[in-house]
Amino acid sequence: MNNFVFYNPTKLVFGKNTVEKIGEYLKKDKIKKVLFLAGGGSIKKNGVYEKVARALFESSIEKVEVLGVRPNPVLSKVKEALEVARREKVDAILAVGGGSVIDSAKAVAAGVNYDGDVWDFYSGKTRVKEAIPLYTILTLSATGTEMNGNSVVTNEETLEKFSFSSIHVYPKVSIVDPEVQYTLPPNQTVNGAVDAISHVMEYYFDGTRNTQLIDRVDEGIIKTLVETTEILLENPKDYEARANFALSTTLALNGISGMGHSGGDWSSHAIEHALSALNPEVAHGAGLAVVFPAWLTYVKDLISDKLVRFGMEIFGREDGISALKRWYKKIGAPTTLRELGFEREDIDKLVNIASKMTPMGRLKKLMKEDVRKILEIAF
Amino acid sequence: MNNFVFYNPTKLVFGKNTVEKIGEYLKKDKIKKVLFLAGGGSIKKNGVYEKVARALFESSIEKVEVLGVRPNPVLSKVKEALEVARREKVDAILAVGGGSVIDSAKAVAAGVNYDGDVWDFYSGKTRVKEAIPLYTILTLSATGTEMNGNSVVTNEETLEKFSFSSIHVYPKVSIVDPEVQYTLPPNQTVNGAVDAISHVMEYYFDGTRNTQLIDRVDEGIIKTLVETTEILLENPKDYEARANFALSTTLALNGISGMGHSGGDWSSHAIEHALSALNPEVAHGAGLAVVFPAWLTYVKDLISDKLVRFGMEIFGREDGISALKRWYKKIGAPTTLRELGFEREDIDKLVNIASKMTPMGRLKKLMKEDVRKILEIAF
Repeated sequence: MNNFVFYNPTKLVFGKNTVEKIGEYLKKDKIKKVLFLAGGGSIKKNGVYEKVARALFESSIEKVEVLGVRPNPVLSKVKEALEVARREKVDAILAVGGGSVIDSAKAVAAGVNYDGDVWDFYSGKTRVKEAIPLYTILTLSATGTEMNGNSVVTNEETLEKFSFSSIHVYPKVSIVDPEVQYTLPPNQTVNGAVDAISHVMEYYFDGTRNTQLIDRVDEGIIKTLVETTEILLENPKDYEARANFALSTTLALNGISGMGHSGGDWSSHAIEHALSALNPEVAHGAGLAVVFPAWLTYVKDLISDKLVRFGMEIFGREDGISALKRWYKKIGAPTTLRELGFEREDIDKLVNIASKMTPMGRLKKLMKEDVRKILEIAF
Repeated sequence: MNNFVFYNPTKLVFGKNTVEKIGEYLKKDKIKKVLFLAGGGSIKKNGVYEKVARALFESSIEKVEVLGVRPNPVLSKVKEALEVARREKVDAILAVGGGSVIDSAKAVAAGVNYDGDVWDFYSGKTRVKEAIPLYTILTLSATGTEMNGNSVVTNEETLEKFSFSSIHVYPKVSIVDPEVQYTLPPNQTVNGAVDAISHVMEYYFDGTRNTQLIDRVDEGIIKTLVETTEILLENPKDYEARANFALSTTLALNGISGMGHSGGDWSSHAIEHALSALNPEVAHGAGLAVVFPAWLTYVKDLISDKLVRFGMEIFGREDGISALKRWYKKIGAPTTLRELGFEREDIDKLVNIASKMTPMGRLKKLMKEDVRKILEIAF
């Protein structure tokens, strides 16, 4: 096990009928005016928008709305929200949505008092030094962003999908009410499962040794995601499955699943970011379902014992990679680049985008040519 | 799964050569003068005292020492430290030791600016409203106090061993360096394992249903404690076993093991507190090794399925209670009140002390007569 520092100051408010509590949490912190950031479509249909609006009204908290954040969120939308946040002098950001909304909100929270270009945080030109408080209401369990300091955004002009991480943008309070996810389309549940499983696997397969406790925690998260995804595809309104699924996705990337791991590998994530940068229609989870097994295949000799353990613990089969791919197919996730709509000619473009991030990885340091081989396996 | 709020603002600094970092953490927070609270015996022998003293000196942080905190810490010692903390106007408390030292330090941190009797926090007369910052260096992994807001202290005059819990006394930074535990006597490792396993079991067996994810996390913690305790009894200097053991005890009671459980049962803990209140020579872990299996036996019909699952997952045997007791014997923990030195006549006294806390429990509400029956099973 490696040395680590764990610090996660987000207050997680979890369970039924918790959305309406947002007013009291904001009031307790003396917030008077929020930037309400959201996608806008689903929360108006499933009643979340109305509940939040009423809670804010009842706590006398003013809101300025910026709606229309899309999956694979883009820099231009962040800048639009940032302008509103500055002009309206909001005290805090309230993000209501999934990973895209919350990740965009983190950039806004960090950018309000920063004089330069908010992209500087992503490009690594500067580090986040402060942020206004961020509150979130999660409507799609997947990325774990509700309880960490990570943000991923695409710069549409450069086709760069980059991330930053800062202690300053951990949400102050995150509300996770599994019931609001009853109406999610099945493919979003599937993509969420793949995303969260991939987060855990980035640590689990990073080559760190003697992580017995966290291996068990990680296997527990993955097993629960496998079990609850299957239940939810049958019955999307099974509360207990939604709740266990949601908590699994949060714990998959709030620091616990990687304790003692020195940060994880993250090559699969970096390569996937090239996929959704090139084609924003590719959901992050769907991209990971294709890339992660290909990466595992490419590095399998370095982690052969762990792959057997993984396969046996999660699927009861020794061949961990095939078992994982078989399960992805079973739940309707794509497993090849072709299924995502990419052509063989796209591999060059993907390699070029991904190579901005090379060398990448911890288990095996990947260069441009390694990325090409992984994408060829994935094709 | 039940609704819950998780909020744990402690920064956990974990691993080799971390003790000496205390100076920089205090300095970053602009602390100038600390109350250095410790037991005093072992830390002078194992080099921890010297490392801490040097780190403080190098960061120009003044220290005022109060040594001599004993296992099953007592109110009089807390009051002594409190007087020094007030007189010397310290900015923070630095607790260096195990659960007794850190629990005492929490009372001091909360008591410094409180005008009344610090026992009021334990008796429930008042709630903690503020505290000066607390920093800890853990030298004995067992109670989990390094990453929670709980404090247990004995009032020697009334023989009450009571607790309080407050968000204000979560340590700001806790340093856990597994190497400093190489020289622990085997029975302290055993007691620590039993204590931490009992913490997890207080949630696991509290009757909450549909906690699939946290059941797996809890089983992972217990399995790791079982595995690493056995290794450490053979080789107390096995770093990886010490590290996995230490992290398991922290996660056993930092809120994660009880997510969705509405607080756990805690009857076994309450009954054990009577044991060590009557006889302060009884280590908390040793007392729990006796009481918990007796409580499980008393309530077994309410949790029969869970007991089978527990037995199979942890020990590969269906009868969870006997398997647990057999393992406690194997590692040298006591399993009867008699082995702890109690006589049959003591049962009345124990029942009287424990009955101050009745009704207790969540799975089954226990009254005075229930406690007597459990103690008779334990005898």
